[in-house]
Amino acid sequence: MPVMTASELEAFAQAHFPQMDGFGFRIEEIEDKFLRIRLLYHSRHLRPGGTISGPALMTLADLAMYFAVLSMIGPVALAVTTSLNINFLRKPSPVDVIAECRLLKLGQRLAVGDVQMFSEGETEPVAQATVTYSIPPNQYRER
Amino acid sequence: MPVMTASELEAFAQAHFPQMDGFGFRIEEIEDKFLRIRLLYHSRHLRPGGTISGPALMTLADLAMYFAVLSMIGPVALAVTTSLNINFLRKPSPVDVIAECRLLKLGQRLAVGDVQMFSEGETEPVAQATVTYSIPPNQYRER
Amino acid sequence: MPVMTASELEAFAQAHFPQMDGFGFRIEEIEDKFLRIRLLYHSRHLRPGGTISGPALMTLADLAMYFAVLSMIGPVALAVTTSLNINFLRKPSPVDVIAECRLLKLGQRLAVGDVQMFSEGETEPVAQATVTYSIPPNQYRER
Amino acid sequence: MPVMTASELEAFAQAHFPQMDGFGFRIEEIEDKFLRIRLLYHSRHLRPGGTISGPALMTLADLAMYFAVLSMIGPVALAVTTSLNINFLRKPSPVDVIAECRLLKLGQRLAVGDVQMFSEGETEPVAQATVTYSIPPNQYRER
Repeated sequence: MPVMTASELEAFAQAHFPQMDGFGFRIEEIEDKFLRIRLLYHSRHLRPGGTISGPALMTLADLAMYFAVLSMIGPVALAVTTSLNINFLRKPSPVDVIAECRLLKLGQRLAVGDVQMFSEGETEPVAQATVTYSIPPNQYRER
Repeated sequence: MPVMTASELEAFAQAHFPQMDGFGFRIEEIEDKFLRIRLLYHSRHLRPGGTISGPALMTLADLAMYFAVLSMIGPVALAVTTSLNINFLRKPSPVDVIAECRLLKLGQRLAVGDVQMFSEGETEPVAQATVTYSIPPNQYRER
Repeated sequence: MPVMTASELEAFAQAHFPQMDGFGFRIEEIEDKFLRIRLLYHSRHLRPGGTISGPALMTLADLAMYFAVLSMIGPVALAVTTSLNINFLRKPSPVDVIAECRLLKLGQRLAVGDVQMFSEGETEPVAQATVTYSIPPNQYRER
Repeated sequence: MPVMTASELEAFAQAHFPQMDGFGFRIEEIEDKFLRIRLLYHSRHLRPGGTISGPALMTLADLAMYFAVLSMIGPVALAVTTSLNINFLRKPSPVDVIAECRLLKLGQRLAVGDVQMFSEGETEPVAQATVTYSIPPNQYRER
């Protein structure tokens, strides 16, 4: 079961990733091996054509997975992404994007998550990502 | 053979992606189906542990591919990423990162590129990405 | 809604891919943008350690997506895989493997599907794949 | 430097993967973190349209990486694929396919390789794969 709340995760991010402040997100729900996060719309995320940029969605997918892992194992700042695969499916309108991350595997050393991203109010995903994290062996001492 | 120079690509980016200004990059070399680009080190790209963040490397890989495609087909702002797969191989030191993109395929509708990224002065890659772009059918009218 | 039944798909495969006969599969369910297929256990699918081999799971993922696409657009033999990304999550026991494919996107030219694979009787997936298919422009004439 | 020869690898495969016999391959060259392997053409690898099937190329990519890893660390049968990402670039003619695997990373626990595949006699790749292997902790005792 989750060991961190949304506000604990946000406080942790603010302390360890102060530069993420400009990204503009809000964690909305945490369940067992599941996390939902919202990217708040800002014009800085746009690309030509008026859609949300690929890098914004990739950052969101990575962040969703990072928080999903931390919600389950605690505040391990040094958990690192080992791979990320993303498919861009539809043009994301210039609105908030909601990412839902499900942990497919949460092992001692490796976690794998599936992240689906939706434009606010839409039911068809704008992108799907599979993200792999490596968990440092000394994780539990860091809590 | 390439149809755009490094300074033409940078001017195009500045006109169409003004928000990329803060990312801090420089196109260093363009050859047939090959492009090298440098991410200039800035503390905003760091993550806990003092290494360059995953999102910074993903943005760099995407940008390397975008410019590699545009260097060959001309200024098609609406070429879009359809998928990106990245493997993080080593911790990137807090220095510039150089990305080299080779186009494995440059079709009418689809381009696929291999991007290898290196910390300045190192010979072993810090990350490898495979990026797929979709080229809009009306590309030639847009030049 | 689906336009082909399980037995129509199996007959189509037998006619166009006679060499798949040795693979040993059975289509179990077809719904709107969803297909479930079973890989029948055979010792030829084993690898050292007594688990189902990676190539068997990759072939299953590719086949699940192929049939999911065909179930929706009809018997287009020339639909081809453009990319496949698979994560192996757990050691698959020497039993049947069930693959469930959900189409995340079914466009005119491109389809993207998410495939989750389970060992018979288990609830945690042994592998997850994301598969992209290209649909030939003359698809409708081929039916 | 490599610790196994092509014929040692082929003998190892025959002992541990007798079912691979029907696949029909030949290891052609081994260098430091590099291996070239040939898939011998056989009609069983064809798919509709008369091209080499996707599963045949995926199996080849996986095998190239497996042998590249073993050539460097010795006969560790239980090294397992953790992920594979493949892009199909061109239609592979009904001839031999040559795969070249370069190890981008060879760590204690994880190896990552880039595999490019070519139809015999061609210079443009038919497919590119990135493959990740997990190396069991007790690898050295198994030699």
